Formats: sequence, structure tokens, C-alpha cells
Amino acid sequence: MAYSAEKLNQEKVIRDPVHSHIYIQDQIIMDLINTKEFQRLRRIHQLGTTSYTFPGAEHTRFTHSLGVYEIVRRICDHFQRNYPSQTPTDGLWDDNERLVAECAGLLHDIGHGAYSHTFEHIFHTDHELITQKIITSPETEVNQKLRQLGPDFPAKVANVINKTYPNQQVIQMISSQCDADRMDYLLRDSYFTGAQYGNFDLDRILQVMRPYRHGICFKMSGLHAVEYYIVSRYQMYLQVYFHRTSRSMEIILANLLKRAYELVQNPPAGFKFEPTLLLPFLTEQFDPNQDLNPYLQLDDGVLNTYFSTWQELPDKILADLASRFLNRRPFKSVQFKQATKPLIPKLVSLINQAGFNPNYYAATDNSYNQPYDVYQPQNQQQNAPIELMQKDGSLLELSQTSLLVRTMTGRDLGDSRFFFPKEMLRTHSDLELFQPVYDNFQQYLKNDQIIRPKESNNEPN
Amino acid sequence: MAYSAEKLNQEKVIRDPVHSHIYIQDQIIMDLINTKEFQRLRRIHQLGTTSYTFPGAEHTRFTHSLGVYEIVRRICDHFQRNYPSQTPTDGLWDDNERLVAECAGLLHDIGHGAYSHTFEHIFHTDHELITQKIITSPETEVNQKLRQLGPDFPAKVANVINKTYPNQQVIQMISSQCDADRMDYLLRDSYFTGAQYGNFDLDRILQVMRPYRHGICFKMSGLHAVEYYIVSRYQMYLQVYFHRTSRSMEIILANLLKRAYELVQNPPAGFKFEPTLLLPFLTEQFDPNQDLNPYLQLDDGVLNTYFSTWQELPDKILADLASRFLNRRPFKSVQFKQATKPLIPKLVSLINQAGFNPNYYAATDNSYNQPYDVYQPQNQQQNAPIELMQKDGSLLELSQTSLLVRTMTGRDLGDSRFFFPKEMLRTHSDLELFQPVYDNFQQYLKNDQIIRPKESNNEPN
Amino acid sequence: MAYSAEKLNQEKVIRDPVHSHIYIQDQIIMDLINTKEFQRLRRIHQLGTTSYTFPGAEHTRFTHSLGVYEIVRRICDHFQRNYPSQTPTDGLWDDNERLVAECAGLLHDIGHGAYSHTFEHIFHTDHELITQKIITSPETEVNQKLRQLGPDFPAKVANVINKTYPNQQVIQMISSQCDADRMDYLLRDSYFTGAQYGNFDLDRILQVMRPYRHGICFKMSGLHAVEYYIVSRYQMYLQVYFHRTSRSMEIILANLLKRAYELVQNPPAGFKFEPTLLLPFLTEQFDPNQDLNPYLQLDDGVLNTYFSTWQELPDKILADLASRFLNRRPFKSVQFKQATKPLIPKLVSLINQAGFNPNYYAATDNSYNQPYDVYQPQNQQQNAPIELMQKDGSLLELSQTSLLVRTMTGRDLGDSRFFFPKEMLRTHSDLELFQPVYDNFQQYLKNDQIIRPKESNNEPN
Amino acid sequence: MAYSAEKLNQEKVIRDPVHSHIYIQDQIIMDLINTKEFQRLRRIHQLGTTSYTFPGAEHTRFTHSLGVYEIVRRICDHFQRNYPSQTPTDGLWDDNERLVAECAGLLHDIGHGAYSHTFEHIFHTDHELITQKIITSPETEVNQKLRQLGPDFPAKVANVINKTYPNQQVIQMISSQCDADRMDYLLRDSYFTGAQYGNFDLDRILQVMRPYRHGICFKMSGLHAVEYYIVSRYQMYLQVYFHRTSRSMEIILANLLKRAYELVQNPPAGFKFEPTLLLPFLTEQFDPNQDLNPYLQLDDGVLNTYFSTWQELPDKILADLASRFLNRRPFKSVQFKQATKPLIPKLVSLINQAGFNPNYYAATDNSYNQPYDVYQPQNQQQNAPIELMQKDGSLLELSQTSLLVRTMTGRDLGDSRFFFPKEMLRTHSDLELFQPVYDNFQQYLKNDQIIRPKESNNEPN
Repeated sequence: MAYSAEKLNQEKVIRDPVHSHIYIQDQIIMDLINTKEFQRLRRIHQLGTTSYTFPGAEHTRFTHSLGVYEIVRRICDHFQRNYPSQTPTDGLWDDNERLVAECAGLLHDIGHGAYSHTFEHIFHTDHELITQKIITSPETEVNQKLRQLGPDFPAKVANVINKTYPNQQVIQMISSQCDADRMDYLLRDSYFTGAQYGNFDLDRILQVMRPYRHGICFKMSGLHAVEYYIVSRYQMYLQVYFHRTSRSMEIILANLLKRAYELVQNPPAGFKFEPTLLLPFLTEQFDPNQDLNPYLQLDDGVLNTYFSTWQELPDKILADLASRFLNRRPFKSVQFKQATKPLIPKLVSLINQAGFNPNYYAATDNSYNQPYDVYQPQNQQQNAPIELMQKDGSLLELSQTSLLVRTMTGRDLGDSRFFFPKEMLRTHSDLELFQPVYDNFQQYLKNDQIIRPKESNNEPN
Repeated sequence: MAYSAEKLNQEKVIRDPVHSHIYIQDQIIMDLINTKEFQRLRRIHQLGTTSYTFPGAEHTRFTHSLGVYEIVRRICDHFQRNYPSQTPTDGLWDDNERLVAECAGLLHDIGHGAYSHTFEHIFHTDHELITQKIITSPETEVNQKLRQLGPDFPAKVANVINKTYPNQQVIQMISSQCDADRMDYLLRDSYFTGAQYGNFDLDRILQVMRPYRHGICFKMSGLHAVEYYIVSRYQMYLQVYFHRTSRSMEIILANLLKRAYELVQNPPAGFKFEPTLLLPFLTEQFDPNQDLNPYLQLDDGVLNTYFSTWQELPDKILADLASRFLNRRPFKSVQFKQATKPLIPKLVSLINQAGFNPNYYAATDNSYNQPYDVYQPQNQQQNAPIELMQKDGSLLELSQTSLLVRTMTGRDLGDSRFFFPKEMLRTHSDLELFQPVYDNFQQYLKNDQIIRPKESNNEPN
Repeated sequence: MAYSAEKLNQEKVIRDPVHSHIYIQDQIIMDLINTKEFQRLRRIHQLGTTSYTFPGAEHTRFTHSLGVYEIVRRICDHFQRNYPSQTPTDGLWDDNERLVAECAGLLHDIGHGAYSHTFEHIFHTDHELITQKIITSPETEVNQKLRQLGPDFPAKVANVINKTYPNQQVIQMISSQCDADRMDYLLRDSYFTGAQYGNFDLDRILQVMRPYRHGICFKMSGLHAVEYYIVSRYQMYLQVYFHRTSRSMEIILANLLKRAYELVQNPPAGFKFEPTLLLPFLTEQFDPNQDLNPYLQLDDGVLNTYFSTWQELPDKILADLASRFLNRRPFKSVQFKQATKPLIPKLVSLINQAGFNPNYYAATDNSYNQPYDVYQPQNQQQNAPIELMQKDGSLLELSQTSLLVRTMTGRDLGDSRFFFPKEMLRTHSDLELFQPVYDNFQQYLKNDQIIRPKESNNEPN
Repeated sequence: MAYSAEKLNQEKVIRDPVHSHIYIQDQIIMDLINTKEFQRLRRIHQLGTTSYTFPGAEHTRFTHSLGVYEIVRRICDHFQRNYPSQTPTDGLWDDNERLVAECAGLLHDIGHGAYSHTFEHIFHTDHELITQKIITSPETEVNQKLRQLGPDFPAKVANVINKTYPNQQVIQMISSQCDADRMDYLLRDSYFTGAQYGNFDLDRILQVMRPYRHGICFKMSGLHAVEYYIVSRYQMYLQVYFHRTSRSMEIILANLLKRAYELVQNPPAGFKFEPTLLLPFLTEQFDPNQDLNPYLQLDDGVLNTYFSTWQELPDKILADLASRFLNRRPFKSVQFKQATKPLIPKLVSLINQAGFNPNYYAATDNSYNQPYDVYQPQNQQQNAPIELMQKDGSLLELSQTSLLVRTMTGRDLGDSRFFFPKEMLRTHSDLELFQPVYDNFQQYLKNDQIIRPKESNNEPN
């Protein structure tokens, strides 16, 4: 059954630099945008620490969410214009599904929080679970608005996002290997960073996209547009999302939060430390099934505000990491491979010798992504493959026909890096106490790699 | 005398979506960017409340400052390539001035603070004075870096910004009617808002710009490019900077800060209210000549963090205004003219009748700007005019030759608006206690104007 | 009554750099594009001699015509989505008019010929009349395709273009002061020249456009977008369409055709000259009511081919002008005003003294345009004004509310220039026979203006 | 030894939509642009028949040549700023080479002719040889201008283009796997077609490019920018340059010229056919060592002019092919593989049965390109590899470090297609004499491939 909703008398528009305008045609979309849970997304950056590398990347999850909605709206328009369902079983597009799809697109990131991924990692929160809660808990404004379209409408929207909704076309619009979410973030991150690599051809993709019985596929003539999109995604991962400096700042952030956690768990004598809004997380008392508010009160600015005051606290590590984070003093890094990984303990020990607590001043990070992967029947969790429809209606899986995609299919692309304070790279400072330690450390680095030093006779491993 | 500074071995670049890349060729520029005072600009939005109207406008003074530097750098390159000075009095470009120009471009906004204009208005701080202090006070990192180029170098940079530097060419690069500051913000605000109006032709402007004895002028062949820039500026003012919704949010912000000030000055019995970082301002104890730190500790996120907690406080007005600000509940507004201004007290009284304290829920705002003005000898404060150089070397003032510019010259463009809560526009709610008040109020509004109601017999003015 | 036409099963697209894609949804549009009369437009440049100034401007009337169609299509979509007619007299949009509007948009320039404006001027052809003929003459492929939609369909399309069609909304889409034609050419000429001045905000214009009882108007909230469009148009005229160098090349072209005409009318003894495809025009025998073919066989390349061979002919003037045109040797020029116009005969006589036949080597050109004009009831020929609709449905004429537009309204903007061979500007060539003549000539020029020389005692006027 | 040339007093600019402006700083560049041989490039399209598929692609070799010059100029600027040679053997950039590099960039395509590749293929002309001739033959304007910089300057420029110049850095700017030529055409073709695939990051490439002892290499940090450029090139080949419809139109053009050749070689009785400007080629009498003029007199418009008149000639094949070409009636096509190639004779015979002379109405085309190839010592003709310089100065060949590039290295990407008249695809026309032949033909086609029909019992192969 479809929900009917109040149409706006005339469509409204929101100016957006990526899509030119966001077109709003239904009252429910306007209402959801105006909820406090959605407005909160204005205060949460889309790319966390990436703006430390690409300073233009100051955009938020608010504009991204609008963008995903807009792409979903355009897909629905295209489907309704070119592939309207005539019978329940023809596998074409049923426009009664439009509203649930548009709402799911708009709300798919509603549960994201301050410095989302790092925060989750340290405090074991789960933005996907929180998204579900915000949509389905009666106390949120989002839920109240959604309920106006029917008592089970919130659950439907939530089910689209958690992929249990019966209509695969709607699910794949929001989450698949070529969905509105990924398409918007590639374009948007490309626009705001200024890195042009994510600038694939959205108009063309939308126009070769089509519904079929089991979801969404692409016309064969769109092969190159889809291929280009996959390559764009790969490029954005390697050049933007996995940039060494952003990862370095993320590590500093993680270690800073970890230090705060430990100071709350084991407070030094006489150390006064009451970051009120963070306490539910530092004391592990936050329960999204009880009360979402502690989570919803946080945003990037709130965390930065705490970090700013921590710079003055007597705990040297906390103060130093807070200052490194706010004032952008990234760690340096080098790649390591399987063969050079065993040298890391030696490097860590040198960092320790130089006076840095390695729990906070040395770290490894493995950033890998599969630009495209193919469904393995035994592994239900994996993504559905991208299918191309030939003239006679038969389907061809993307990597079967695209050389570039086949090369990347199922492959973990990225690198593993070892991070350490920039101080370890100092040279020629005869007056520096730790210079011999630094010199020793530097023997292990060459051309952005950890290496085994040529002669280590005087410094056995 | 010129300062020589350490050249970078190879130039460094920062990716920027507006200028493609920012090119950094001197160590001092790199060093200044890395100071904590400059990094702080990452947390201060360029356009304050504009992102409530144009959601893409989430960019900060950090990227704008880099952009101004880059334009200054390009002007210097162009001048040195095409108009290098041969003799001290030839009125051409002396490249020894480059470093002071570039530093001034980079630092011209270093004194801006959280929600700058509104904050200044309420707390009587002065970002220009603070800019001078940050540059010249020995305790700042900025000053320490600048001093490396000579003991009087900081003062020189400060003098460029306060327009007392002897070389007019350097001053006009940074502040004149067609300077690097304005050029960057028009392009940048245009890019991030998505409003295309500010998108004038920078490359062309740079290329028709030239030094002369009394500053900077433009080749006659660049007339249209300069005209287009002035029109762009005019359009951006009317369509972006003076947008009614952004002004409405600014009014809410101002009233919120005003309420906080009054609660600190005259705390109600039992009301606990300690916004620590704001206290120096709420208690009027901040003195930039003593200590810049209280100012430098603030940023947009810090203020938002306070606002977020204020939503829960028992003061209804403070809590309501904080919520309206964070959750984007703008006031509505109408234009008024000289003739309809006398009706405003009547409207204010109706707002009062409807239960809103008009000190916080009614306001007028006059936003006017002169897209271009011409120097009046009797008024030293005004801007130097834009001069065009003809083939024979004689100068022609811009408004003498451009019809469009002449139309706008010295004219205050903008409007005056009256702001009030959206609730005053409710209709048809028979159950609503205040409906008769609302109905009365609405008689005074028509086509975005205050009007005198047709029949006011039952409601005498 | 509306024509129904075969819908394409799925829409087709043509890639276009200005609109991203042209969407084709009806078989008739595809068929019209494939006619030989329409394909001919591929060989006729949109901007004639402008590519001699802006080399990128190599685009043709073919792509422009597709672009006009696409804008019409988008206007119809917007009208049908937001303002669908419910009753015959509600003044809203009747989508049965879509096909006639789209066809008229596509075909509005179908009668343009080789170097259109100059050719018309010399040979007294009329591209508007020929457009009507191509649409209504049974022998054209265009007419044959149009007739498939009904015997009177061609006449309807022709009537839209000649402005006698009953539905004013359809007429104004194609020809008014803010129509699909002007909108496409501003954007397109801007894109291909690289001059950014024509880059107004199409998306915004389309969205504030609306049908009303007497045609098309704009929502009041679109005031600035419309104003910006008018200013863009003004800028494109002054900076691109009226560029002195393009006009200079146009004068050379006109004089070249004039010379050819005179050589055919009065052939010198023994001069063999048979430009076959041009003869119907050089001998004034072309009659569009009889046979369109001579006209349709011409295109820019055909004319250039003749010019190329004319370079070798013994007539010095023909050969020289042909070479100046093909190899881009523009005349130079200066502005003149009412006061300096009387000096022109003196300049012409000096050109003559220097050995140039002034019938072909001296010329004046007045290029003026009204960026916006207002309907005068007594003058039926003028354009309908642009109307803005206020919230209460009342209309306001654009120049009443926009200062910039009011400044330009009804004003002829442009200039008058005098053109002459570059040789007249030679200096310092003592060995040059004509140097005294050149020197004399140059006394009359200063700062791109004709002037009265300071001392003319030895050279009385 | 370096040539010194007259510097322009102030740089001149030409507006260009791809590079914004072309900056001209030396008189020689201005002079070369103004030669008739260079101006001729305005009448030769860059992409031949591609505008039949991407209608925006109407740009010419004139603007491309300016663009290549501009990129060379920017590379020289960057090299001189960051890598100026200090000693003759340091492997850095010697700015005395600038002029020869810039001239070679500007002139590298000067020998291209009308519908270049197809014309060469049919008439065995060689645009590279003609480029050399235009530069070195004393009678050309180009040569006369170049000689002003020294008697051996033309030969130097020619040697850069034919790759025998001693300075490898100069050669590689103009021709290598990442040269100014390729970079400009990718960006330019991308801009004018509207296909975004060629839009790599020029600014970034220029900035990671550097000179070294054996030519030009790239900094390791530019790996991804170079990789993206290679992928862009690959995408442009597959999606634009090898587009089936453009190839189809090229085949029609080739067959049309072939038919003209045969009609001249073996004229039917009474057939009058005198395409004057083409005769030197149709009679195989053109000798570039004798006289370049016949070649220089041709351009795309000249050929189209002949084609236009040929439509009316009594030779049915010539007239039909001319009409198909001018009015865009492409052949249809299908891919074939090694396994299905043997079926082509059968298809050809069916085309013959349907009344089409297969010499002109059936054709195969193999379009393959290697996006990147690696130098094999035994094969001197191959391109130098792209080298990346690591921090310690050692070099790494691109495909060693980029997965995507490695995938494409040395691989022929493209396809083989069989072309035939669209008529062969007619269906359901019971009244059509040839319908059984068409039906039979269509059995061999499926999903854009030649296939072996399922049941061929009634039609043995």
C-alpha cells in the first residue's frame, strides 16, 4: 500500500552548489528537514579530518543528506517517465514507492555523530543503530513527522535503510554499489575538496539506470559511464579518503579520546576533569535504547570546544594531543609491507627512547577498500553486483565486461602506514639531546617506506 | 629596504577548489599558516548565518585567507612580469614589496572572531584592532614568525592592513574597491553558496590591473571586466549577503547574546548561568590590550556548544532563542519604507499582545551597501576610486565611462526589513487564542511590504 | 485541438556541453533533426566572424537549435508540473501545446544561411521569410515530417515563429525578451567563447517562470535572477557581439561580397568569374517563393571555398579582401561621436591618398542594442515587457523594480566606429612613400577616438 | 646557443575556454599565429566526424594548437621557477630552450589537412612530412617568420617535432606519453564534446612534472594524477574517439573519396566530373616536395562543398554516399571477434543481395589503442615510458607502481566492428522486396555482436 502525502502547492527549492538546486515537492520532506535531529547534521562535517589536508572540505552531513534525497528524487522521476509499472509483476517502477525512497535517502545518515568514525571506534557507538532509533523512537521529531504518513511508515523507512524492505529497487537506490549515497558523496567531496577525481557523469548514470525484477541495473550502453564511476570511486579513496595526513590527524584524535577515557577511568590524584557532555561516553553509560539525547547533544564543535580547554590541563599527553589536533600538527608516516612489519617494534622502541609514550605517539593504520566486489552466494553480507542489461534483456555482471573493473574487483586497495611524531625526522641538530635516536630512526625510512637499514652492526635489532 | 626570506626549495601547493591550487614559495608563508592563531580560522565560518539560507556556505575564514594570499601572489607575479620597476620613481612595481604584501594578504582577517559581526555588535569588540594586536604583540606565534624577517616587519604588515604603509600599490592590493580580499570572497562565496552571481572573471581582471605612481589602476581595455566585477558584487550583496533569512537568523543570534548578557548582568534569583569562556565578554572585562586569549579561545563551535546547553535552561526566552537559532526557526519579515515606518510600533504592540517580549521577538534591520563609491576630497575615509588608464597614460575614473557603475555609484542599495515570529502569520485556527491578534497583524502586510490596512475602523492606530 | 504524436519508447539523449544532455521524447523531434534542412545547420556558424576574436566560438546553429528545443522542453515540464491548466480559461499551461512549442523552438533558426547577417545585408535575403518557407513548403523534408502530425501542423509551427499563434505562452517561450532562444545563445556563446559574462542562472530562471493569462511572467522572488540575465545580455553585447575585431572582419566580408557583386554586374573585359553557387544571388535571381535550393546549397564552407580561389584572381581588390578575410587581417578602427563624425570625410580622403579605394577600405559601423525595452502601446512592433507576479497575483513591470534594468531600459547601448586598413597606422618608416599621409591620418586618432588635431594649420580641413 | 627574440612590451592574451587565456609574450609567437598556414587551421576540425556523434565537437586544430603552445609555455615557466639549470650537466632546465619548445608546440600540427586521417588513408599523404615541409620550405610564411630567429631555427623546430633534437626535455614536452599535445586534446575534446571523461587535473600534472638528465619525469607524489590522466585517455578513446557512429561516418567518407578516385581514374562514358582542387590528389600528382599549395588550399569546407554538388551527379553511388555523409545517415554496425570474423563474407553477400555494392556499403574497422606502453629496447619506435622520481632521486616506471596502468600497459584496447546500411535492419515490412534478405541478415546479429545463427538449415553458410 502506498502512502499519500500532502503535495506542496508549488515545489520549493534549496540552492546547492553540487546539484544546482534541491527540488522539494512534498510537505513531509520539508517537515523532516526542519526537525532538530536533521538540523543537527549542519554541525557534523562530512569528512572529519579531511579538511586538514583539503581545506575546502568543510561541508557537512546536512548538505550531503539533501543531495542523496535529490538523487533519489531524480531516479524516481526517470523511472516513472521511462519504466512505469503497468502490472504488479512486470518488474518496473511503482511510483507509490517514491515517498518511502525519498525519506530513506534523506534520513540515511541521520544517526551520524561527532567525528563519526573515530568516535565510534573509541566508544563503541553504532551510527547505523542510532539511525534506526531516530527513525523509530516515538520521542524524536523525525519519527513524529514520519508517523503522519501512517503508523508503520517509520518502520518502512527504517527497513529500507537496514535492507529488509521487500522492494529491492528502493533498497538499491539507497544502498548498493552504485547508489544515491555514494554518488552524492563522490560528487560532493570532489566539489568541496577541489580534487576532481570524483567527478563522474551523474546525468549519464541516471539515464542508463533502470529497474528490473530484482532491483536496479544499467543499460549496456552505459557500461563506460559505470566503469568511470567505479574508477572515480577508486581514485577518491586513494587520493582523498586515505590521504596520509588526514589519517594522521584521525590517529591523533583517536589517541586524544583514548587518553581522555583513561583519565576518567583512572583519574590521577588531584586531577579535575569533567567534560560534562562527553561523560556518558567516557564512563560507558550511554545506552541508545534508553536515551538518545547524550548522543544528539554532541557535534564536532562540542568536541573541539572540549579539546580547546584541554590544552591548558596539567596532563601533558592530553594537552599536547589536543594542541596537535586543533593546531594541525600531524604525525609523519611511512608505508610498511608484510616484510617490513616486523621492524615496527624497533621503531616504536626508538620513539619511546626519544621520550614519547608510544601508546599515544606511535600507531599503525591499514586503510583498504574494494572499489567493487562481486557477490559470493555463500557470503550474504556482500554487495549485490552491478548488472548490465543487454538488448535482449539478458544481464551481464560488470566485471565480466570491463577490464578496469575486473582488475579492481574484490581487491583490497590502499596501504598500511606507520605513524610517528615529526620530531623523529629532525636532522643536523648537534645540540639536540635525542639526535642519535633520531638518526637511528631515520635509517629505517626510505622513499616513504620502512626498510631494513644497510648496516645495523652497531644497532642490532 | 626589502626583507629577504628563505625561499622554499620547491614551491608547495595546497589544493583549493576556487583557485585550483594555492602556491607557496616562501618559508614565512608556510610558517604563518602553521601558527595556532591562523589555524583557529578553520573554526570560524566566513559567512556566519548565511549557511542557514545557502547550506553549501560552510566555508571558513581559513580558506578565504589562503585565497587572498594567492590572489596577492598572482598580482605580484603579473606586476613583476609586465611592469617591473627600473628606477625608484617610475611608479612601477618593486618586487621587494612582495613579501609584506603576501603576508598582509594572508593575515588581513586574522582578528576575526566567532560569529564575527554579530558578536562585535553586541560586545563592542573590534576585529580590526585585534588583527593589529595579533600581528604586533610579541606573545603570538604570528608575531614570532614575522619577526624573523626583521624587527619592524610585523609593524609593516600591520601598517599595510591599517592603510598607513607608504607604498599605495601594496595597500590597494589588500584594501581598495577592487582588492584581493573582495575578489576572493566574491568568488569563494559564489562557489560555496552555489549562487553564480559572484563569478566574475578573475584572470581577466588580474591581467588588466597595473601599478602606477599612485597605486593600482586598470587598462582601459579592461573596462568591461571591472564593470562586471562591480555588478557581481552588487548582485552578491542583494542576493546572498542581504538575504532576509540570514539576517533573520542574525537577529535571533544577536537577541540571544543580548539575553545572555542581561542574565549575567541581572541574574534572576536562583538562576545558575556560567558560560565560562563567554564570561569575559558578558561581564565586559575583555581588554585586547591586556590579553588576547579570551578572544582567541572562542570560535563558532564554542558558541554553538553554549547555545546547545542553554536550550535546557529555565529562562524561557534564552532557551527559546537558542533553540530557534540551532534548529533554524527564522523570524519572518517584511520590507518597510520611510512612509510605512511609523506603522512599526503598532506591529510591535501586536507582537506583544500575542505573548512575545518585543525586546527579543521584534526587530528592524537596515542592510545597505554602496557597490562603488567615489572619493570625495573632503572625506578622507572614503575609498579611492577605480581608475582606468587610457592609451596615452591619462586616467579616467570608472563611473565616468561605465553607465551601469555610474547608476550605482554612491548609492545605498539594499532594504529595511521588520522581523517578527512566524507564529504571527497563522491563519484559520479558530481554536487559537491569539487568532484575532494574528488577523489584525496580517492586515498590515501585503506583497512583502508593510501597508496601511484598508479599513482600520475597529482597530485605530 | 492538440496533436498526438508517437512517443519514443524510451527517451533518447544527445550529449551537449551546455545543457549536459538534450532529451528527446517524441519521434517527431528525432525526425526533424534528421532532415537535410536541419543537418545543414551543422555547416553554419552561430556567430559568423566572432571566432576571429574568440577562437573557441566555432559552434554552429545546429547545436544552438537543439539547445533552444531543450529549454522549451524544460519550460513545458516545469509548467506542467507546477501550473497545469484545469479549465480552459484559468490561464495556466495546457500541455497539448507542448509539441507545437518544441517544434517551433527546434526550427526557429532553420532559415539561417551562410554568414547570415552579412549575406542578408548585401543580397537582401530574409532568413525569417525563409524559415517560414522551409516549414510550410511541401517539398522540404521538414514540412513532410511536420505534416505527419496533421495537415495544419506546419502552419501552426510557422505561426508560433511569426508570432501570430493564438497562445501567447507558446509564442513567448520562443520569442520574447526572456525566451528560450536568447537564453540558449547567451549560455552557449558564453561557453564557447570562454567569455563568462553570459553565464546567468538558467535553473533559477526556469523555476521562477510561470504561465498566466497573457503569456509568461516571473515570480517576484525571481527578480534578481531576471535582472542578472538582462545584465548578462548587456555584457555579452558589449564584450562579444559588438567586439571591434569581429565587426571589422564583417566589414571586410561585406565589402568582399559587394566587390563580387559588382564584378558580376559589370565584368571587366576578359575577366572570367563564375562562382556557380553564388550566381543566383550575385545576379539577383533568387526567389524564395520559387525555389529554396540555391539558398540551401550555401553554407559557410561554400563561401570560404570561393574566397579561397578568389585570392588568385587578377582583380586586386577582390583578391586582397579575400585574403584579408581568410587569413585574418582585420581593419583597425576608432570610435566616433556625433561631434567627430564630420571629420570622417577627411579621413576617407587620406585613405584614398594612401592608395586604398575607400569604397572597400573605409567604412563606418553603428552597433547598438537595447538590453531591455518596454512596450509602447502606439508601437505594436516592440517587445512585450517582462512582468513580475507579486504574492497577491498583481503584476509589476521589471524596470519599475530593478534599478539596473531601469538604467538600461530603452537605451541604445553600443558604439559607432570608423574602420580603415592597419597600414594607416604605420610609423617611423622614412622609406615609405605614404608616410606623410599616414602621419597626417594619425593626428586624428587618440585614445580610441576620432579627434580634431591640435594644429591643423598646414593641413586645412 | 639560444636565440633571443623580441619580447612583447606587454604580454598579449587570447581568450580560450579551456585554458581561460593563452598568454603570448614573444613577438615570434604572435607572428606565427598570423601566418596564412596557421590561420588555415581554423578551417580544419580537430575531430573530423566526431561532431556527428557529439555535436559540440566543432572545434578546430587552430585552437588546439594554441592550447599546446600554452601548456608548453606553462611547463617552461614551472621548470624555470623550480628547476633552473645552474651548470650545463645538472640535467635541469635551460630556459634558452624555451622559444624552440614554444614554437614546436604551436606548429606541431601545422601539416594537418582536410579530414586529415581519412584523407591520408585514401590519398597516401603524410601530415607529418608536410609539417616538416611547412616549417622548413623557404616559401612559406611560417618559415620566413622562423628564420628571423636565425638561419637554423626552422630546422631546430622541425627537429623537435621529428624527435631528433638533442634536448630530450624539449622533445618530450611535445611528444611523449604525457605531452602538451595529448594533454591539450584530452581537455579540449572533453570540453567541446561535453564528455567529461578527459577532464584530468592539468594543474596538478604540471606541478609534479620535472626535468631530469634524460628528459621529463614526475615526482612520486604525482603518481595518482598521472594515473588519472592515463585512465582519462583510455576513457576518451573508448567513449569518444572510437565511437561507432563517428567511425561509421568516417567509413562513408572514405568510401566516398574512394568512389571519386575511381570515377576519375576510370570515368564512365559521358560522365563530367571536375573537382578542381581535389584533382591533384585524385590523379596522384600531388608532390609535397614540389609544391605544397594544392594541399594547403584544401580544408573541411572545400571538401564539403564538393560533396554538396556531388549529391546531384548521375553516379548513384557517389551521390548517395555524399548525401549520407552531409545529411548524417550513418551505417549501422556490430562487433566481431576472431571467432565470428569468418561469418563476415556471408553478411557481405547478403548486403550484395539486398542491392548494395559491398565495395562501398560494407566495411570492417579495427580501432585499437594502447593507453600506455612501455619501451622495449629492441623496438626504437616505441614511446619512452613515464618515470616517477622517488625522494632519493631514483626512478620508478609508472606501470610498476600503478595497478590500473599496469592492467592497460601494452594492451590494445578497442574493438573490431562490421558496418552496413541501416536498411538491413528493417523489419515487418511485408511489402518490401528484400525483406527475406534482411531477415536472414538479422539472424546473424545479437546484442551488438555477430553470432552464428541458431538454426541455419534453410540458409547454409
